[in-house]
Amino acid sequence: MANPSITANLERLAAIDAGIHNGDFLLTWEQRDATIQFVLQAAELLQDCARAGISTRLFDSGLGMSIFRDKSTRTRYAFRSGCNTLGLMTEELDESTSQIAHGETVRETAAMIAFLSEVIGIRDDMFLGEGHKYMVEVAASLDESYREGVIAQRPAVVNLQCDLDHPTQSMADLRHLIDTFGGVEHLRGKKLAMTWAYSPSYGKPLSVPQGVVTLMARMGMDVVLGHPEGYDLADEPLAAARAAAQASGGSFRVTGSMADAFDGADIVYPKSWAPMWVMRERTRLVHAREQAKLHELEQQALANNARHTDWECDDAMMARTRDGRALYMHCLPADITGVSCKAGEVSKTVFERARLDTYREAGHKPFIVAAMILATRFAQPAEALRGAIASGVMRRRG
Amino acid sequence: MANPSITANLERLAAIDAGIHNGDFLLTWEQRDATIQFVLQAAELLQDCARAGISTRLFDSGLGMSIFRDKSTRTRYAFRSGCNTLGLMTEELDESTSQIAHGETVRETAAMIAFLSEVIGIRDDMFLGEGHKYMVEVAASLDESYREGVIAQRPAVVNLQCDLDHPTQSMADLRHLIDTFGGVEHLRGKKLAMTWAYSPSYGKPLSVPQGVVTLMARMGMDVVLGHPEGYDLADEPLAAARAAAQASGGSFRVTGSMADAFDGADIVYPKSWAPMWVMRERTRLVHAREQAKLHELEQQALANNARHTDWECDDAMMARTRDGRALYMHCLPADITGVSCKAGEVSKTVFERARLDTYREAGHKPFIVAAMILATRFAQPAEALRGAIASGVMRRRG
Amino acid sequence: MANPSITANLERLAAIDAGIHNGDFLLTWEQRDATIQFVLQAAELLQDCARAGISTRLFDSGLGMSIFRDKSTRTRYAFRSGCNTLGLMTEELDESTSQIAHGETVRETAAMIAFLSEVIGIRDDMFLGEGHKYMVEVAASLDESYREGVIAQRPAVVNLQCDLDHPTQSMADLRHLIDTFGGVEHLRGKKLAMTWAYSPSYGKPLSVPQGVVTLMARMGMDVVLGHPEGYDLADEPLAAARAAAQASGGSFRVTGSMADAFDGADIVYPKSWAPMWVMRERTRLVHAREQAKLHELEQQALANNARHTDWECDDAMMARTRDGRALYMHCLPADITGVSCKAGEVSKTVFERARLDTYREAGHKPFIVAAMILATRFAQPAEALRGAIASGVMRRRG
Repeated sequence: MANPSITANLERLAAIDAGIHNGDFLLTWEQRDATIQFVLQAAELLQDCARAGISTRLFDSGLGMSIFRDKSTRTRYAFRSGCNTLGLMTEELDESTSQIAHGETVRETAAMIAFLSEVIGIRDDMFLGEGHKYMVEVAASLDESYREGVIAQRPAVVNLQCDLDHPTQSMADLRHLIDTFGGVEHLRGKKLAMTWAYSPSYGKPLSVPQGVVTLMARMGMDVVLGHPEGYDLADEPLAAARAAAQASGGSFRVTGSMADAFDGADIVYPKSWAPMWVMRERTRLVHAREQAKLHELEQQALANNARHTDWECDDAMMARTRDGRALYMHCLPADITGVSCKAGEVSKTVFERARLDTYREAGHKPFIVAAMILATRFAQPAEALRGAIASGVMRRRG
Repeated sequence: MANPSITANLERLAAIDAGIHNGDFLLTWEQRDATIQFVLQAAELLQDCARAGISTRLFDSGLGMSIFRDKSTRTRYAFRSGCNTLGLMTEELDESTSQIAHGETVRETAAMIAFLSEVIGIRDDMFLGEGHKYMVEVAASLDESYREGVIAQRPAVVNLQCDLDHPTQSMADLRHLIDTFGGVEHLRGKKLAMTWAYSPSYGKPLSVPQGVVTLMARMGMDVVLGHPEGYDLADEPLAAARAAAQASGGSFRVTGSMADAFDGADIVYPKSWAPMWVMRERTRLVHAREQAKLHELEQQALANNARHTDWECDDAMMARTRDGRALYMHCLPADITGVSCKAGEVSKTVFERARLDTYREAGHKPFIVAAMILATRFAQPAEALRGAIASGVMRRRG
Repeated sequence: MANPSITANLERLAAIDAGIHNGDFLLTWEQRDATIQFVLQAAELLQDCARAGISTRLFDSGLGMSIFRDKSTRTRYAFRSGCNTLGLMTEELDESTSQIAHGETVRETAAMIAFLSEVIGIRDDMFLGEGHKYMVEVAASLDESYREGVIAQRPAVVNLQCDLDHPTQSMADLRHLIDTFGGVEHLRGKKLAMTWAYSPSYGKPLSVPQGVVTLMARMGMDVVLGHPEGYDLADEPLAAARAAAQASGGSFRVTGSMADAFDGADIVYPKSWAPMWVMRERTRLVHAREQAKLHELEQQALANNARHTDWECDDAMMARTRDGRALYMHCLPADITGVSCKAGEVSKTVFERARLDTYREAGHKPFIVAAMILATRFAQPAEALRGAIASGVMRRRG
């Protein structure tokens, strides 16, 4: 049953006003500090409950809808199990059989999948300038439908990765850092190197690095973003990271050298992403249905990446970090040299040492999703959780 | 909790004997008046409960299976959320990986997906002369399996659109009319124009107009079916509509002029459908796997439609209706001129005024599905609902 | 509510120590007798509860994940409804969009889909030497993740058909035999003919015959395996069947004649499977992506089968069995001569007589799956069930 840590966490949670009841969770940099704090605290509490076998099924019925406009294993599972742990049945809008786009189609589809839904999770990360815009459009459609009495409750839109941010990932990453370093207060002043790394694949979204630098700078960390020339992140998150660092007393800078980023780092997050011009050009070519040119672009992008195979997180690179023992992070799956590809983001020995830690990092995601649902769908989320815990119902009976 | 309207509705519901316990819901014109009345009343009550946040999870476990032999977003969501609101987990038989057909295959598959199922929702609307027959075959197979002790309970077959009828749509449409006009008794004598409308697409099923004219004629309405030459509906629903009008004191006639249908109408339902000979020929060509001829047929059908682009519901056409303000209905998605296509079923201005109303119309469907499950799976459905409401369990706790 | 048979079954169940708490169910011949006995007894009890309308929802939340590396209708439904009857929501890992393989990919994916899961059902039956190995690898990955605190509970791996065994099928078959002959003790000394039969299809797995001969020989039955030259089963299950027969006092022999196998048989199980060399060669060609050679192999395999069209279970063959009335078994769907194909495994008249019995046979599978989950996920499964039954909650309320 509820142990002292759960009771204490519940008290802390009750003291925070998430402030997003009937709202959405789209970009961390648009959320107030209390919201971030609430989601982190609630995710920890939900994970503690799961470990203690306590049921947190706060919904007796209701749907969690998802729309995946890009493939996903890890985030899909996180969304579904996050929904399930609160009692929501999940369904997915199959876009291949039911195409949805912009304008009236979005407004209508948003209403059609909202009648009995509590949350709509969306992944739309492949096209620069589109994913976030699409989510905002869905949210506005839901607002209208709720205001006009078309739907009885306003489902939350939860960003499962867009072109700008990947908040369930970055918040899970932050939970992992808090767990690893023993509290959010210990993150202040720690150096985090978010760097590009070589991968023999093409067109990976920019939202993970963008999400990480903005959120970690906000925690007072010394964030260094490292990448080869031409692999810049988008302007909005870069500006958000700079502003966050200034506000938090942390720092944020960009370097063109992996070694510079790694020097003395407490945490490293080496990961491939595509140049923005590649993402933009691909968006254009996909819209224009230029298959031949898309193939050409892929070849060009791969050749481009191949000029930077030295951006690999190997033992030599790790030796530069604090005491040679920085925490290695990755959103998974990593491209591991000699394992999943000939040359990749990380050497086999570095990854093998960090492997279980990256699984733990991922293990926070279902609870982050559930915490976001809790924050958006309950007027008094801590009270609701307190009731569930007090009822003594277990996840597995007997 | 339960408000006076819910209590009053519950009393009304308890007074109606649905009469289809352990049965199916396939065609409205095969159902007795009391059954139609029960489903309408139950759907209203279930929607009231959802709006009041009252849980109606009457099943502690059990499956709602669906078989979609044609793509679907709206009806699929309606089926799944209707099941969920009663506590059923949904699963879909994937026909692309597990082909099912007629004869032994149907009998066997019906048993295989029935062992712990309470309802099997089927969409099979693309081939004239096949969809309804298939559902009857599934129902007969379930009868046999139940009689012979192969399955412990007899799942209801719910028609999610066949070649003859689309009862979850027409019943949701009727719920919308009752809501809009303030009671079923106010529908008597109202003029409803169910008309063909131009669309640049091909092969839309006839089941929506067939379902609407038969059900609305039964409600004592003056139903006018309008379409260009060659776009006749099937004989069985036409005969059913005539018989229903005669029995109810309403009327039913067919016209070849959209203007005639719209003149003085209280309600208009302009919507594209395919000529029967196109549907029949397509059925034949699909079975014969004649790809080239299928393409030819599509071209011919589109050219055929294109001769009637003047069948558009625009402001001029709407001006003909009662006070120029008829209720516009559509099963969605509509083909909107200048929005989803160059020229379509409805002009942008007409649709924009009606838009939220068409969403409300669609919003009845999940509750119609749930009401059909209630009617078929419970010996004393009103008592079961009364118990759920009295228990005080809410959809969202705390 | 609970009838005397349920109460008595509960007592019998409480007396058996399944011995696989926190374990897996992969191959029947690796399981102790008590485990087999527990699963059979629990499946019977769960089916009795379902027939009495008693809810056995022991999980308040939690996921049942499935991975199907081959198509499936019957086993997929059995897995999902088995999970549902215990309260687990099901999700499927979509391998077409999220490729999983061996090594690090398996270890990582296993962790990613385990965070809040209670069971992972896997079908991987197409490639000789791979399916079972894959499941063992998943199980080992889960062990590591559980040991290292990555996941809070150890989901059971349940074999939904591998290259060696198909335990949910063979255990359902055994439940059917127990029901039909009135008790496991009446199976001793009965002759069961598991024979190859002609089918105009190619590449059917060997796991059904392998699962049946090993499990039935263990029950003291006289098992005769019959097949044309070249259609031998794999060594491991053959050795397991021989050892089981010796230990149980039953017998196991192989014959090249269908007539010999059928002579005086109490039970016949005629079913097509592929020669091992075809399965091996296909595995090799698939890995090498040799499409043309795969097509050639298929043609060759079909021609090979076609030399044995006389291996059909027709009336003449059935006349050889005990009193001409052996129990006909099949895992479904059967290839029925003149129904699903021109010439197949079984004649129309033989199948028609046995048809409903084969449905009953299949009807045990959902409860076998649920019983395996019960055995692996509960420390005191009988106590847990006793609590659920005593609570008086019904599957359908009111």
